[in-house]
Amino acid sequence: MAKKALTKPAKGTRDFLPLDIQRREMVTGIIKEVYQSHGYLPLETPTFERLDTLLGKYGDEGDQLVFKILHRGQKLVDGIREASEHLQVPENIVRGRSGETAPGAESLLTDMGLRYDLTVPLARVYAEHQGKLPSVFKRYQIQPVWRADTPGKGRFREFYQCDVDVVGSTSVVVEAEVAGAVAECLDRLGFDEYQIRLNHRGLLRALIEVCGIDLAQETEAIVALDKLDKVGPDGVKAELERKGIDEAARSKLLDIVLGTTSLKDMAGHFEGHEAGQAALAELEQVLDFAEGTAAQPRLAFDPTLARGLGYYTGCIFEVAVKDLAGSLGGGGRYDGLIGMFLGRDVPACGFSIGLERILVVMEQRGMFADLSPGIDVLVAATHKGQLKEALTLATELRQSGLRVELVPKADKPGRIRKTASERGIAYAVLVFDGEVVLWDHATPDVTNHKVSAEDLASLLLAQNLK
Amino acid sequence: MAKKALTKPAKGTRDFLPLDIQRREMVTGIIKEVYQSHGYLPLETPTFERLDTLLGKYGDEGDQLVFKILHRGQKLVDGIREASEHLQVPENIVRGRSGETAPGAESLLTDMGLRYDLTVPLARVYAEHQGKLPSVFKRYQIQPVWRADTPGKGRFREFYQCDVDVVGSTSVVVEAEVAGAVAECLDRLGFDEYQIRLNHRGLLRALIEVCGIDLAQETEAIVALDKLDKVGPDGVKAELERKGIDEAARSKLLDIVLGTTSLKDMAGHFEGHEAGQAALAELEQVLDFAEGTAAQPRLAFDPTLARGLGYYTGCIFEVAVKDLAGSLGGGGRYDGLIGMFLGRDVPACGFSIGLERILVVMEQRGMFADLSPGIDVLVAATHKGQLKEALTLATELRQSGLRVELVPKADKPGRIRKTASERGIAYAVLVFDGEVVLWDHATPDVTNHKVSAEDLASLLLAQNLK
Repeated sequence: MAKKALTKPAKGTRDFLPLDIQRREMVTGIIKEVYQSHGYLPLETPTFERLDTLLGKYGDEGDQLVFKILHRGQKLVDGIREASEHLQVPENIVRGRSGETAPGAESLLTDMGLRYDLTVPLARVYAEHQGKLPSVFKRYQIQPVWRADTPGKGRFREFYQCDVDVVGSTSVVVEAEVAGAVAECLDRLGFDEYQIRLNHRGLLRALIEVCGIDLAQETEAIVALDKLDKVGPDGVKAELERKGIDEAARSKLLDIVLGTTSLKDMAGHFEGHEAGQAALAELEQVLDFAEGTAAQPRLAFDPTLARGLGYYTGCIFEVAVKDLAGSLGGGGRYDGLIGMFLGRDVPACGFSIGLERILVVMEQRGMFADLSPGIDVLVAATHKGQLKEALTLATELRQSGLRVELVPKADKPGRIRKTASERGIAYAVLVFDGEVVLWDHATPDVTNHKVSAEDLASLLLAQNLK
Repeated sequence: MAKKALTKPAKGTRDFLPLDIQRREMVTGIIKEVYQSHGYLPLETPTFERLDTLLGKYGDEGDQLVFKILHRGQKLVDGIREASEHLQVPENIVRGRSGETAPGAESLLTDMGLRYDLTVPLARVYAEHQGKLPSVFKRYQIQPVWRADTPGKGRFREFYQCDVDVVGSTSVVVEAEVAGAVAECLDRLGFDEYQIRLNHRGLLRALIEVCGIDLAQETEAIVALDKLDKVGPDGVKAELERKGIDEAARSKLLDIVLGTTSLKDMAGHFEGHEAGQAALAELEQVLDFAEGTAAQPRLAFDPTLARGLGYYTGCIFEVAVKDLAGSLGGGGRYDGLIGMFLGRDVPACGFSIGLERILVVMEQRGMFADLSPGIDVLVAATHKGQLKEALTLATELRQSGLRVELVPKADKPGRIRKTASERGIAYAVLVFDGEVVLWDHATPDVTNHKVSAEDLASLLLAQNLK
């Protein structure tokens, strides 16, 4: 017999024990119900994808965080030989944050990676199966994704996303509906002080132009602006300066996004700027449509919202909760991504709720009701000769819809009660000497009474419904 | 714009479109309900595990089929260099079925692998978290597993298993209960002509001994016997011969397992053989207990059942369906596996239902009822100016519990009806000129009538309940 092995789950991953699963399923159950009520249909995609599907969509840093699957057999033997030759050339080795990397050598050893988000797989699926899908395809997807990030407090290498996306429509009704679905999820989960921040990539682009920043630096400016919450205005200005954006331009940009709170005031900056005006009109339309949804009191224009991801093209959203750093999720319109797979652009817009953050906040803020242990009644025999009778009784109770735990060996009445009590099971049924005795945990003295096996199921079901 | 990319899912994996998910969830929903009614609690484990957790449990062939995750950064650069040196020694390269492999080199490039089954992770979890778990821990787990096998018809690299296991009890009540749960799953799914074959590893071991085969060759004999369904008695005998087992012994073994149908007859071969008699007594006890469960008409002793996996120690099961090659699932008692993690043996017994085979058989045999498209009603506006009204109406209907699809742009009544009809949505609600018109797909002429927005929800809910 070996000594105890290392039995922790792999770094950055977690085991979900029964109570964890109960809480997770309570939350995903509500999210699913809301998504379904909004007409989103379920989709699931494979855990791993070809690397040509995954890479080049998340930026260089994202590409490095994709977990890759090692070749096997002959392909691996050949790959190791070639990769080692590749490493002979010092220029092929890149000095990164955490030591050397060699992407070229890596690509000789792998051609598949683990799902990094749910949006890129959706784009691939739509390009592959569009003939079988409605012309406007609304889907929800609740699955884990994996990132080879350094794990930290509340940051995991395996975590769940709950996404809704609409593919095939340019109408901003879609934006309003997506925001409405997200608001309804959060309302039903019990969140009260939250906002859905709304902005528009077209507006940011127009702003960048209006401030005199070269549009070639659009991405850098947006990435810098995205850090406003974390580093503050001076931090953003410093990063813009590092990117070579001049003082006048960076001050103007910060002044406008920090100083303008209404769409009306914003319009003043875009006289004669068609694209800027079009973006403002879309934002106005989304806010108007949202009045017909649960997002109405939540959705608010926020010109400081930027979102880091490169693929957004129109409206962008993010959920902010009072007294919480970071967001519970975000999304937006990305009319170009599916074109990377399909060869022609197809409009799309979606939102991703991060399950782990929802769970952490709900636990910290005591938003979970006490969950039952998932067992309605414990059945046990006091003598070996009555085990079969106990098993038969358990089968009957199960078939009438009760969740029944059976003690697999005969035990003393006191110990059986103790087991029920320790496990938090409200009722115990003891089979002994041809009699069936029901014991009620809540009122042990009163309801410790003999019952006929026939009456037991209806009696317990009635108790359960209370 | 790039041309259309390769958009198929990775080899051996599948995209699950909405109808696939509906069917899968219908099946897993029933399985979950039955498992829960039997007192099994949910568990989920990470997609990847440390390789020291996974390897050495599934046999050499199994170890090769574990998908492994490539190191990153400096660890990868160092690993490639070492692995290439390792390959300089020709003896380190093994010639396998499909070309060369180099397990030693491989181990320098990876230390994590994808989940291969749900039993080994359970054993690790039990060893890690036992203090937080009931002393008899009954869990169910429905998650995908991955095997780097050659994909084929009905054989995938990513597939779901639905497992129940009981850890911590030696009582054969557990075996009866596990068989009962499996039978109830299959009954409720609509399977009628199936059997749960039952045998005992202790009995097979005793038989091997009684036939005069060296117990050192127990595993080979069992692996050979396990192929009886596929290769027939002569095939098994040929394999036993190849393993060096003599004619008299192999004939006796085949004669007994093929010629003995009852436990009573089998007893005749074990006079004075204590272990053989103990195994027979356990089988008899399981069959007796099973009379108190849904397994009663299904469970039958079958001395030809062997099961390939090495870790079984007691009763073994397998589900056979009439006119179907292979099984829908199997399981048994494995009292040694948890000890590999915990350092002390803990008894365990379980069963694994293979979801993909269940689905294939149910589809082939027309066992799926027509599933609805998951949408109760389509809402649409005929003029742009009424989109907001349509959105508001959709929100109201959703909040009353209906699943509502909204057409995101204004459209003509005829086209809206066509969309509803193509999508198989029974009702369409048209908002135009301040009026709301309900269109019933089943009786288009009669029920094309104006309704007030207030009446609509109750009207549709009433229809839905029919």
